[in-house]
Amino acid sequence: MRMKRGCWPWLAGMLLVGVSGAALAQPPAVAQSCASCHGSQGQGNAAAGYPRLAGLSKEYIAAQLHAFASGARANSIMHGIAQGLSATQVKTVASYYAQLGAPASAASTSKNSKLLAAGREIVVNGLWQKNMASCDACHGLGARGIGATFPPLAGQPAGYIEAQLTAWRQGKRPPGPAELMPSVAKTLTAKQVHAVALYLASLPPSGAIPKSAHPDLAPNQADAMPGYFQPPLNHDLPKGKMGASIRRGYKIFMNTPKYAKKYVGDGMSCVDCHTNRGRQAQASPMWAAWVIYPKYRGKNGRVNTMAMRNEGCFRYSENAQGSANGKKPADSSRVIRDLSSYMFWMAKNAPTGHHMKGQGYPHIAKPPKPYSRERGHQLYADNCAACHGSDGQGLRLAKGEYAFPALWGPQSFNWGAGMHRLNTAASFILHNMPLGRANSLTVQQAWDVAAFMDAHPRPQDPRFNGNMKETIKKFHSRRYIDDYGKTINGLHLGAPGTLKKWEKQHS
Amino acid sequence: MRMKRGCWPWLAGMLLVGVSGAALAQPPAVAQSCASCHGSQGQGNAAAGYPRLAGLSKEYIAAQLHAFASGARANSIMHGIAQGLSATQVKTVASYYAQLGAPASAASTSKNSKLLAAGREIVVNGLWQKNMASCDACHGLGARGIGATFPPLAGQPAGYIEAQLTAWRQGKRPPGPAELMPSVAKTLTAKQVHAVALYLASLPPSGAIPKSAHPDLAPNQADAMPGYFQPPLNHDLPKGKMGASIRRGYKIFMNTPKYAKKYVGDGMSCVDCHTNRGRQAQASPMWAAWVIYPKYRGKNGRVNTMAMRNEGCFRYSENAQGSANGKKPADSSRVIRDLSSYMFWMAKNAPTGHHMKGQGYPHIAKPPKPYSRERGHQLYADNCAACHGSDGQGLRLAKGEYAFPALWGPQSFNWGAGMHRLNTAASFILHNMPLGRANSLTVQQAWDVAAFMDAHPRPQDPRFNGNMKETIKKFHSRRYIDDYGKTINGLHLGAPGTLKKWEKQHS
Repeated sequence: MRMKRGCWPWLAGMLLVGVSGAALAQPPAVAQSCASCHGSQGQGNAAAGYPRLAGLSKEYIAAQLHAFASGARANSIMHGIAQGLSATQVKTVASYYAQLGAPASAASTSKNSKLLAAGREIVVNGLWQKNMASCDACHGLGARGIGATFPPLAGQPAGYIEAQLTAWRQGKRPPGPAELMPSVAKTLTAKQVHAVALYLASLPPSGAIPKSAHPDLAPNQADAMPGYFQPPLNHDLPKGKMGASIRRGYKIFMNTPKYAKKYVGDGMSCVDCHTNRGRQAQASPMWAAWVIYPKYRGKNGRVNTMAMRNEGCFRYSENAQGSANGKKPADSSRVIRDLSSYMFWMAKNAPTGHHMKGQGYPHIAKPPKPYSRERGHQLYADNCAACHGSDGQGLRLAKGEYAFPALWGPQSFNWGAGMHRLNTAASFILHNMPLGRANSLTVQQAWDVAAFMDAHPRPQDPRFNGNMKETIKKFHSRRYIDDYGKTINGLHLGAPGTLKKWEKQHS
Repeated sequence: MRMKRGCWPWLAGMLLVGVSGAALAQPPAVAQSCASCHGSQGQGNAAAGYPRLAGLSKEYIAAQLHAFASGARANSIMHGIAQGLSATQVKTVASYYAQLGAPASAASTSKNSKLLAAGREIVVNGLWQKNMASCDACHGLGARGIGATFPPLAGQPAGYIEAQLTAWRQGKRPPGPAELMPSVAKTLTAKQVHAVALYLASLPPSGAIPKSAHPDLAPNQADAMPGYFQPPLNHDLPKGKMGASIRRGYKIFMNTPKYAKKYVGDGMSCVDCHTNRGRQAQASPMWAAWVIYPKYRGKNGRVNTMAMRNEGCFRYSENAQGSANGKKPADSSRVIRDLSSYMFWMAKNAPTGHHMKGQGYPHIAKPPKPYSRERGHQLYADNCAACHGSDGQGLRLAKGEYAFPALWGPQSFNWGAGMHRLNTAASFILHNMPLGRANSLTVQQAWDVAAFMDAHPRPQDPRFNGNMKETIKKFHSRRYIDDYGKTINGLHLGAPGTLKKWEKQHS
């Protein structure tokens, strides 16, 4: 529970009753010493580079205090302070700052508009030419933080942010969830770190998120990895009705459950499998797909137009059967047309009929050793759970949108989606995951994680005809790469009732 | 009526009764002298280069005899003979040879396979790099001739064909219908003339048309006019299911009333407006269209996918409302998918999203003087009637296929098709017509012909809502380029009943 600054005095009594034991309305004694650097409201000190604590998650604050105490996070002042705190005191102080509201205004605003723009580009649009997602992909829109794991960065002192990135680069701060930050810090140049820090410091920590903090429809700078096709940039968007259609298509692509609600029966968006807005090579980019359709597909035994191919995504990855409409959108529906416009636009200049470098998910070799769900489980905990949750259910935001998609269960793609095949999932994981640390797992690890993921229930394959044996024979007979019909951990995957059974166990 | 060689003795009596007065079963006395050069059965003399007469149309033979007599067609032997014939004798001899069956075997067969192949390419596939259609476009499949105007060429002596083309080039033979042949003869090099003649001479004049005499799905040699995009060639056709789809699409494109019968309510094929299989620059080529869709179209106020655009062609140019299906094919129908495959294939290598040189029908300036339907009528008679008929109803072959499309009336495109607009028609005519003599009319002439064409009834605009005024206001208000709703020659164009009234007048 968060509170707005200024409200807390009259709510204090309520808080003492309504909030869990650790949350305190009055500063606890142990927090008195924090105030001298971090401010009386935990608002930080921009000039000195002391970070704001107010509104950070209690888990995050507690983890930092423990890291300071152990020396894993190197800081001579904090080391001494943290060492002096008992486990209970850590909890108390963490809870106290967590329930304080974030301040309304940014720590500082740089006048260097060029640096701010460069920082903004990385923070909101990413640095995909180095296969790095935007900061906001994990830290949320406006860098306001996501969940317990990803702290808000908006309005933190620039010096503080810069120092942390430098510490990660130098190994002086623990790697943190999924070891993402050391990788990010090493990807950025010193100049980029500076720009990112300045921009983040300029963002308001609370209140309305400024329009400029929203990601653009496309990056403003070339974002293709070296040697790959460069789709058009933000300023290339045409005006008029066609531009409007592309813009609608982009929104559908980025948040399918919201903008194509009628046809979506799970929590998946197009961008979940096609990263960087569908632009990223080796993540089945849309520009490469566009130029090879129409195409004969064995999956449905006919030549598919792109409209039909997109309908396939709705049928399987979006589990349209579970939607309000109960089925995929029609070829001539606005959803399909707008998605077509968006894809077509991304393919601008791409040669028709060419198999372009970076198309689809790259072929992945079989693993050196047979894949192991047990190893996969551990790898998942270390690399994936920070975003997708230890229960694989992703992270749903208050407004119903998913910050990170569910990898199994009722909100994930169904058993007919391409991603349910181990080889496809392994290739996607190897080349794209964890977001910001692509290509860091081994082939073996990618298969192991994929096998762990696939060994869970998900919505029924819409081609299921009531008979498991027949459905397996027709659509799921490549047993090394497909767990449909297998019984794993007591669950008969794909069988009627299995998903409900799993849901009961996990509710 | 034609007879097979060898049948005529026992049918002689019947012929004397059943065939129009001029047709004779026994050689008329006047034909005795012809036989010495043209053979006892009018089969010609390959070695001497004397042409076959058997099976040529009586109109064609008579026209040649008159031309020989006047000296317009220069030939010292024939000049004397023809001058000696009365008008009745010309009729008699022409009818006699017309009713004889064509011989079964070719005049000669060259051993020069390279030259034969070069000749075949022009005869069956055309020389579109010089904006020239195939010989067969007018002379029919297998060069067996079409109607009264275009004589069969199959199996004529090579020397004869070569001499005629040379005569046209030198102005020693009358220009003939629509002055096509002088233009063709000037387009070909001497070597090409030789190759064409050898190939035509090798074709069987009757019996089954060899498979090799059918046009290919695409030319075997580059066919782009200089400076324009080159679509893939015949050998580039992919194998497998995709190739099969492209092949089906090609067939639909070339003969829409036959291969998409269910959805076609007139006699139009795609190729009628998109010449050279949809490959020709400035004739709205499919490769250029492919790469600019999806596209916003004011015509229906939405972003159209290519499938929707093709449906538009069915709705208007194919008058699908009058078909067995009663409406255009669905987006996901095989017809639309196969057409998509064919178009996609033609656009191979074309850059996505580019407005390519040669796209659509080029913009045409307004005519220097106001257009004139009267001048258009005369121009039509001189340039168009040879193929499209003096009544504009095209030429329907025995098997129900159109050799040349109807330009108005019930078998032509309806009032909603783009081609009903004068500017579109004028541009198409200027840049593409007459086939084989493109760019030979002036801008003024193109407008005049278009105005004459448009001043005739055609099937109703499917957007007609029962009220002419409203339909005009909504869809036909650009009066300079659109005759819908005008009353011309006593016909209220577009009004209910007008087409039927015209049909009665012309039946």
